[in-house]
Amino acid sequence: MNKKIVVGIDIGGTNTVFGIVERNGKILFDGKIRTSDFDEPEVFVAALYEKINISIKKLGNSHDVMGFGIGAPMGNINKGTIEYPADLPWKGIIPIADIFHKYTDLPVIVTNDANAAAVGEMVYGGAKGMKNFVVITLGTGLGSGFVVDGKLVYGEDGFAGELGHTAIRPGQSNRECGCGRKGCLETYVSASGIKRTLLKIMADSIEPSNLRKVSFEKLDSKMIHEAALKGDKIALKAFKHTGQMLGFKLADVVATTNPEAIFLFGGLALAKDLIFEPAKEYMEEHLLNIYNGKVKLLPSKLTTQNAAVLGASSLVWTSKEV
Amino acid sequence: MNKKIVVGIDIGGTNTVFGIVERNGKILFDGKIRTSDFDEPEVFVAALYEKINISIKKLGNSHDVMGFGIGAPMGNINKGTIEYPADLPWKGIIPIADIFHKYTDLPVIVTNDANAAAVGEMVYGGAKGMKNFVVITLGTGLGSGFVVDGKLVYGEDGFAGELGHTAIRPGQSNRECGCGRKGCLETYVSASGIKRTLLKIMADSIEPSNLRKVSFEKLDSKMIHEAALKGDKIALKAFKHTGQMLGFKLADVVATTNPEAIFLFGGLALAKDLIFEPAKEYMEEHLLNIYNGKVKLLPSKLTTQNAAVLGASSLVWTSKEV
Repeated sequence: MNKKIVVGIDIGGTNTVFGIVERNGKILFDGKIRTSDFDEPEVFVAALYEKINISIKKLGNSHDVMGFGIGAPMGNINKGTIEYPADLPWKGIIPIADIFHKYTDLPVIVTNDANAAAVGEMVYGGAKGMKNFVVITLGTGLGSGFVVDGKLVYGEDGFAGELGHTAIRPGQSNRECGCGRKGCLETYVSASGIKRTLLKIMADSIEPSNLRKVSFEKLDSKMIHEAALKGDKIALKAFKHTGQMLGFKLADVVATTNPEAIFLFGGLALAKDLIFEPAKEYMEEHLLNIYNGKVKLLPSKLTTQNAAVLGASSLVWTSKEV
Repeated sequence: MNKKIVVGIDIGGTNTVFGIVERNGKILFDGKIRTSDFDEPEVFVAALYEKINISIKKLGNSHDVMGFGIGAPMGNINKGTIEYPADLPWKGIIPIADIFHKYTDLPVIVTNDANAAAVGEMVYGGAKGMKNFVVITLGTGLGSGFVVDGKLVYGEDGFAGELGHTAIRPGQSNRECGCGRKGCLETYVSASGIKRTLLKIMADSIEPSNLRKVSFEKLDSKMIHEAALKGDKIALKAFKHTGQMLGFKLADVVATTNPEAIFLFGGLALAKDLIFEPAKEYMEEHLLNIYNGKVKLLPSKLTTQNAAVLGASSLVWTSKEV
């Protein structure tokens, strides 16, 4: 009998990563294309599908593809669409499942990329056996996936978990968000958010820093991380502020869903204590005493590459269509 | 065969209301005692149990009591406790189910009063048939109950839904909360919150108002409501500000759980447009466009008296012990 495989796809603001995945979570092949290179979603899918097809063909005839799982910002499981994504090059409502169906009759299941990461964490990562937890993905933007009583929260319209687009201090921030509003959490807490915070600190301070030599466009969160490790005071301050803003919001998350753990995933989470310490401190400080010391703040046990891909693939494994 | 009945109890900051309830939601008897009259929870339960017992005896031998359902601030379903309630006269952890068990061997099920109200809304009120909704109770404090995919969210420790103790603008408010912290939502959005807001507006403004004749202690939200209906500018401003603060937070609620509807329940909700209009306006303004116009903001269909009692009673009907 042929081995069953699925294709997990993570559509991100910069790159789209895919993997050919076995039921046990083993990734047989993976690859990526640059999302930002494609102005039209139809051309993007044409290129992506062809690249995936080449990988599948390499496996020969011994494997059966069962379907495609897609994690994407603003991915909607009810409709198979991506709707008004702030961080992708495409505008409006993109019928991504329908576009895939030009090439395949197999099931195509779409959800929020962070929701997919949460399922991945539950099936293959640090949330194994947990019933109530939250995954926060820190990439170009900030995504979140809520698991309540062992099930992912999709919400009435399939759009639950957009924590990145809540305000920290409503009406009191001038920081513009890709969504058209101001002061969204992801304008502070994300790879791009920490860059913006760094710039503001740099503007206010007269502290010397090697990062003053780098343009905003060339700057990335990894450079800020490395500078902070070398003791760069501006970089350290940027991490502290980013962690604190995250901690504020995590206190809200705890007060609404009372999770056992919150997992941080993505580039910024790799900065470990630099982000975890201020986040934990501010979260605890803003928690009602009944929650204090009860909620674990943990790094994701999945790697940046595979979490969303595994999560997206598990959408297919767990769907009724397969 | 004897008719089965349960006792639903709603423990509030000011009053405790109980009802003897049939399976169909018919309340055969109800009554109340003043919570604030009792310094010790043991004495409170002794008085309450006796009062309930008198009501039950009036029914004669044709009814069997199946259990007691209790809704209370900080009520914990896992442990049968009330823990550190900010709005009750008792401190620390109160083993309320154990205290009841001095008098009865029947099941005693405890949860957050707002969680109980949410179950009541689902079984008997405006949320009939809804799978994803939130109930906000506006009493002395602010409570909330989240229903996801047809089930109440209890969280890992049984403490989900404490929206009243999240901050609107973390770190930026001096308004003290009964929980020991500052700036909690319920210090703004509740019967006591609107009084405090009114006082601040009164202090800043030179606008005349009949409410200037009333002491803080004598003032209640109903008086502010009546003044607003007569065009009192300070009262109108207090309602507007209260609604706006609520709207900010409702936008967060939508972005995390994407409900079909949010129900407002309790005294302040009776002020209708005075509270619903600014709340709706600010909620919509702070929502990501994917949610705009999709989430209904509705008044509870249950009366102030019966919602929490029916909700508390349905805890018993739906428990496995009955």
